[in-house]
Amino acid sequence: MNQTQENPLSQISTQRFSQLSEEEKKNFLLGRHFDSSKIEHYKELLSDFSSAHHKYPILQEMSENTLSHFPLPFGIVPNVLINKNLFDVPMVIEESSVVAAASKSAKLWKEFAGIKAQTLCQEKMGHIHFFWFSQSTLLFSWFETIGRKYLQEKLAPLETNMKKRGGGILSLTLKNCTEKLAHYYQLEIVALTGEAMGANFLNTLLEAASQILKDKAPSEGNIDILMSILSNYTPNCRVKASVVAPVKELDLFFQQTTQTANFCQRFLSAIKISKVSLERAVTHNKGIFNGIDGVILATGNDFRAIEACGHAYAGRLGSYQGLSEAYLEMGHENNSLFHFSLELPMAVGVVGGLTRLHPLANFSLELLKNPSSNQLMEIACSIGLLQNFAAVSSLVTTGIQKGHMRMHLLNILKHLEATKEEKANAVDFFKDKTISFTAVCEFLESLRRVH
Amino acid sequence: MNQTQENPLSQISTQRFSQLSEEEKKNFLLGRHFDSSKIEHYKELLSDFSSAHHKYPILQEMSENTLSHFPLPFGIVPNVLINKNLFDVPMVIEESSVVAAASKSAKLWKEFAGIKAQTLCQEKMGHIHFFWFSQSTLLFSWFETIGRKYLQEKLAPLETNMKKRGGGILSLTLKNCTEKLAHYYQLEIVALTGEAMGANFLNTLLEAASQILKDKAPSEGNIDILMSILSNYTPNCRVKASVVAPVKELDLFFQQTTQTANFCQRFLSAIKISKVSLERAVTHNKGIFNGIDGVILATGNDFRAIEACGHAYAGRLGSYQGLSEAYLEMGHENNSLFHFSLELPMAVGVVGGLTRLHPLANFSLELLKNPSSNQLMEIACSIGLLQNFAAVSSLVTTGIQKGHMRMHLLNILKHLEATKEEKANAVDFFKDKTISFTAVCEFLESLRRVH
Repeated sequence: MNQTQENPLSQISTQRFSQLSEEEKKNFLLGRHFDSSKIEHYKELLSDFSSAHHKYPILQEMSENTLSHFPLPFGIVPNVLINKNLFDVPMVIEESSVVAAASKSAKLWKEFAGIKAQTLCQEKMGHIHFFWFSQSTLLFSWFETIGRKYLQEKLAPLETNMKKRGGGILSLTLKNCTEKLAHYYQLEIVALTGEAMGANFLNTLLEAASQILKDKAPSEGNIDILMSILSNYTPNCRVKASVVAPVKELDLFFQQTTQTANFCQRFLSAIKISKVSLERAVTHNKGIFNGIDGVILATGNDFRAIEACGHAYAGRLGSYQGLSEAYLEMGHENNSLFHFSLELPMAVGVVGGLTRLHPLANFSLELLKNPSSNQLMEIACSIGLLQNFAAVSSLVTTGIQKGHMRMHLLNILKHLEATKEEKANAVDFFKDKTISFTAVCEFLESLRRVH
Repeated sequence: MNQTQENPLSQISTQRFSQLSEEEKKNFLLGRHFDSSKIEHYKELLSDFSSAHHKYPILQEMSENTLSHFPLPFGIVPNVLINKNLFDVPMVIEESSVVAAASKSAKLWKEFAGIKAQTLCQEKMGHIHFFWFSQSTLLFSWFETIGRKYLQEKLAPLETNMKKRGGGILSLTLKNCTEKLAHYYQLEIVALTGEAMGANFLNTLLEAASQILKDKAPSEGNIDILMSILSNYTPNCRVKASVVAPVKELDLFFQQTTQTANFCQRFLSAIKISKVSLERAVTHNKGIFNGIDGVILATGNDFRAIEACGHAYAGRLGSYQGLSEAYLEMGHENNSLFHFSLELPMAVGVVGGLTRLHPLANFSLELLKNPSSNQLMEIACSIGLLQNFAAVSSLVTTGIQKGHMRMHLLNILKHLEATKEEKANAVDFFKDKTISFTAVCEFLESLRRVH
């Protein structure tokens, strides 16, 4: 595997590689790693998935050293009723069953007046992280009397565009963090960022502010500014989605469809377990993000930011817990209500970044009737809720393997171009066996050997 | 926006939608949401990104209700030296600068003997979550004398294939969780899953085990099995990547390239801050997953699982902290060494799931010389380390906006088909201004109005 000795081309510098044309990059890379027998095959593969390059040049320009484009399924969860509006929600996700599960939940909850979703707050924040080597009071007194006002004035021109769009700085706060780390302080900027996710806006403000802070901090002490950067943790940019239905009706529905008694009680138990078992909580929340990330990707937003924020929030109480909540509202004469909700922070944009530049992200937003950023938060959170409902429902009734493995098996069979008869045989054979690509291959081979 | 009243077609059921052909789905959806003037345009758009469907039917079969495929840039980080082997690492990521930053770090660390990476352990686990309504001792005594052995015997046939591949069950453990929740117990299965991520293997084992547990638990008590599912939290499936270089040389390099003194000290401070500031830790780790997820996606693995696990692990000490570590090893005569490392849990596969079914994921694995699952963990972790190094380095030297915003601006200008002259004007104009799509549009329009 050590290619350094074998191939003098491997000494090519990164700079050199990035400066090659796409075609040259492909030739170099394929030549470096593959026999001539495979080179043409892979060249074709890479081209098959970048055939839309020329028509949509942005695809080529989003990232660096791009050789092709990785296609992820763009699917639709139809008829999602959110705040009395019906949406067909686009999801980008490679995992089988996720779109199907969300669709099933959407259909069920449409019968119970749909999802109620609400953006609770939309504040973003960022920090100048710095060290101050002198008395804390000196710094605070400068900041309160001179610093904050001066910064506000100097940052005002950078806010002009954002203010037109309803955004802008909400507060500048100096924070003493010396109990956590010697000499450590933060200057925190809290802002509204309109319809944009706000990273560029905040980072631009912060870097400008850090220059000002460096120049203007009291000369009696030394200031050492380490870094200036937005925070992807946005506990005050939060959204909540919830559903409610009569216990009696839900129980009856699941009794009829899955032969499971006491569905609502079982669901509640699963939520309780997600609060006390770390091992379960992680998987519970993973399912929620299956839903959320699908929408985030489809609309050109950044799922790493959403994931980091949401999971850190899941640990905010000192132990990592499931993000969704459920409870029963007791009523008279067997009229109890089942409440289920999901509340979490997320920062999304409907302008800026790739949201409008990526042609399919733009299409997703058009399909969602050009939502505002808070509406998009509500849609993403709703799909997270639906996905969590579907996953937990399956788990506490039939188990997830039944549907999942059947779909997995059928996918493999299609890939191996199994005939109708082979498919039927395989479904029967694997009823009580572990399904894997190898196992299905072997089974098909054995079938084909016989015939 | 309320379409229920306007369009009778909106009453179509989910079942009905999923049963339509791809073409019918498109027609229905576009007809429901767009004017006839836009329908053809969007139909073409959706087709442009699904043109490889027929050649690669798996793309169509991965998920449900698929109308097209969302293209994400497939880029290369060249010349990553890991354990003395040189890799050209594929990344799938839409965020600009990430591939460039990882490439830059890879180039730098190649000069210092590259990255040392090591898989520390590879155990996966799953649980039967159940309630037991009787004495705990009754259950434990049954399990230790009869239950475990019986389960092992009955599960053995399900392990056959996995054992051939070096995997199988490591332990069956009964856990009393009644201090967390009344009557709550877990049966934990710990297993090795060979080269597969292992979700299907574990879930199949767990569902089989839960049936056995239900049937065979002591009849003196009542058992209520709630659910059986693998855990995406895999603290015992862990990988570590690290780099080391002389402080003197690193400091000199950054002094020359960024005019920043004391680079290593500044870097260490940034790591310390990521341990004490939640707001910073989230963004710090987000950057790490920018790197890891790129590799995870490119190889057909599941980034939601990796994210959930990694972020929960970041909070394992009771407060959410940055995942990477750095320290100085003091040496004689100015010969100190800078150590930087990243250790985290992640469960990946190189067989099963989409790893071999998705044509580009398969290509990624071929390009990486068909790594084992632990080698893939090492590669993904290494890219996370490089990405984190690049992000923190930028932050503590020039700031991230400089490079990032320049790239952002150039992307927008290309999209708007700016001429060379317009580009130069725009770069100059936006030197001290917030860059946004709207702002750049307006600037170009103003330029074009003048001419």
